[in-house]
Amino acid sequence: MKKEVPNIYDIAEFANVSIATVSRVVNGSDKVSEATRKKVLKVIEKFGYTPNVFAQGLGLKTMHTIGIIVPTLADDYMATAVDYLEKGLKRHGYDCILSCSGFELTEKQSKCDMLLSKHVDSLILVGSTYAGNGVDASATDYIREAAKKVPVFIINGNISGENVYATVCEDEAVVCDVTGKMIERGRKNIWFLTDSRSYSSNNKKKGYEKAVERAGLASNVIYVENDIHSVKEQLSGLKDKPDGIIAANDKIAVGAVKYAVSAGLKIPDEIEIVGYNNSILAMSSTPEISSIDNHTAEVCHDTVERIMHNLNDDGYKPSNKITISCNLVCRETTKVSD
Amino acid sequence: MKKEVPNIYDIAEFANVSIATVSRVVNGSDKVSEATRKKVLKVIEKFGYTPNVFAQGLGLKTMHTIGIIVPTLADDYMATAVDYLEKGLKRHGYDCILSCSGFELTEKQSKCDMLLSKHVDSLILVGSTYAGNGVDASATDYIREAAKKVPVFIINGNISGENVYATVCEDEAVVCDVTGKMIERGRKNIWFLTDSRSYSSNNKKKGYEKAVERAGLASNVIYVENDIHSVKEQLSGLKDKPDGIIAANDKIAVGAVKYAVSAGLKIPDEIEIVGYNNSILAMSSTPEISSIDNHTAEVCHDTVERIMHNLNDDGYKPSNKITISCNLVCRETTKVSD
Repeated sequence: MKKEVPNIYDIAEFANVSIATVSRVVNGSDKVSEATRKKVLKVIEKFGYTPNVFAQGLGLKTMHTIGIIVPTLADDYMATAVDYLEKGLKRHGYDCILSCSGFELTEKQSKCDMLLSKHVDSLILVGSTYAGNGVDASATDYIREAAKKVPVFIINGNISGENVYATVCEDEAVVCDVTGKMIERGRKNIWFLTDSRSYSSNNKKKGYEKAVERAGLASNVIYVENDIHSVKEQLSGLKDKPDGIIAANDKIAVGAVKYAVSAGLKIPDEIEIVGYNNSILAMSSTPEISSIDNHTAEVCHDTVERIMHNLNDDGYKPSNKITISCNLVCRETTKVSD
Repeated sequence: MKKEVPNIYDIAEFANVSIATVSRVVNGSDKVSEATRKKVLKVIEKFGYTPNVFAQGLGLKTMHTIGIIVPTLADDYMATAVDYLEKGLKRHGYDCILSCSGFELTEKQSKCDMLLSKHVDSLILVGSTYAGNGVDASATDYIREAAKKVPVFIINGNISGENVYATVCEDEAVVCDVTGKMIERGRKNIWFLTDSRSYSSNNKKKGYEKAVERAGLASNVIYVENDIHSVKEQLSGLKDKPDGIIAANDKIAVGAVKYAVSAGLKIPDEIEIVGYNNSILAMSSTPEISSIDNHTAEVCHDTVERIMHNLNDDGYKPSNKITISCNLVCRETTKVSD
């Protein structure tokens, strides 16, 4: 059963001193007489009270804690990013408080508020869902509000605002390039599959559309569920058959591979498939999926470094936006370009 | 750049009152004169100070925060479990502080201490790595130490001790059953692949050995790296070929599938393969992998419920050990038993 933990009030009461005195003893201040110090320590010993973050927090400007918000950890990309961030921050002596917000605006807002109430030194929002759809600015007002209190870093989302720092991946450029190369290899009916209308997904879509339009081909954007079997079934239900697929994430690409196999389409001769995130899912598939690597490790490392420059106020002013370039990791679902 | 956040000392100083008075104002106590209250609020308004957890913590016995320790989030099973725990605890009004410990004892210990210093109400350790190898008790002393301060819950690991609560999966029973059924279908050379000597892995191994020994067959336990391509290469380098594989996790099973495909072994006619965790990796593979479901959602739900009974002291005493049964989810890498 739960043990009652004595707090600083209890200690102050039993030692018959002020809580400020308890705090001074705990923090090793020399402004306390030896007799008082002994009296307080005796009570602390008796109650088993250990100086905790709350007491210490009173005497410190920072708790060396960073708040991380992620929509869900049940997503390989997000979980991996949090793992990198957590390890990177730890190396600088910072702990993390993690909260999962889901994808609804009200919950995103409330998790921000919750973490701010915990007095974090900075907030990191992981994933482009926090950047809204890039059109409606009111969907990101809560971020600019939070940034009035602490610096806010957003991973793979672009939001402008004071004290807001974004790391974005060059999604549009890489998808445009990869689609263009597929077209050069003779593909004429390339589809773009996505499950999201987020900032990042919209950029991938733009890159795809730019490439097909430039080649005078029709664009075909298909919104799917983020579920392997749903993707397979949805594609199987369509009359037309693509000769190329660009998927907004690897899970969708796995569904596309299963569709192609069941439809009897030879990979990569009759259909090429490209995934996104270069995750373990791309490797788990047979054939293994060529996937766009968005350099999660680099993005997270960079974010941690900029947070440290910011918090340490070391004279190096991190820029508000950094762009990380992406590249295709070729495996078995694409042909090699000349 | 970082904004200086005024703390309770700053407010007290500028309002020329004691920090106890500031705390009373913040907590809405009526033991403060209206004039003093106004004076303090004016300073608070001026500095933008918001009552934070540290100040509030002084007046509360609990911060409604649970510490979660996980070896790494770069593992689908762990990340999914943390996601379930976080959502479940949130429903009860509890926040989580997450820390990744890796697999070394000293780091596990230090993360426990760190979270205890943050005054968490309870600790959850996710994964059987925290239970040591089930032989050397000194490898789990740090858990019993932590349990002197707060209740400690361990997911999929069995540790005895006061104030320690374990949820374990029936790994041994299910692996024995699944291996036995493979033998009944005529398999004579079944291998067990694992990357770990953890409590959970050892139990799976025991179940496998029990089944093959019972049938008078030789056991073949192979330690592999937890990496798809390493598994494939390691198996390809062996002269002998198995007709059945039980893998301790789905990633290893994916490697086994890739080995079988490259070795020209027909799945499931010439070789049956079973994974563990029933994760998205099992579904991403082609053919899709039959995998043992260890009911992560149920395990996490159960853990959250028992934490709540414990912390709320509601008269229901949760048992120190709960066992969750597992079952095989059949897909394309096993034949159907009669």
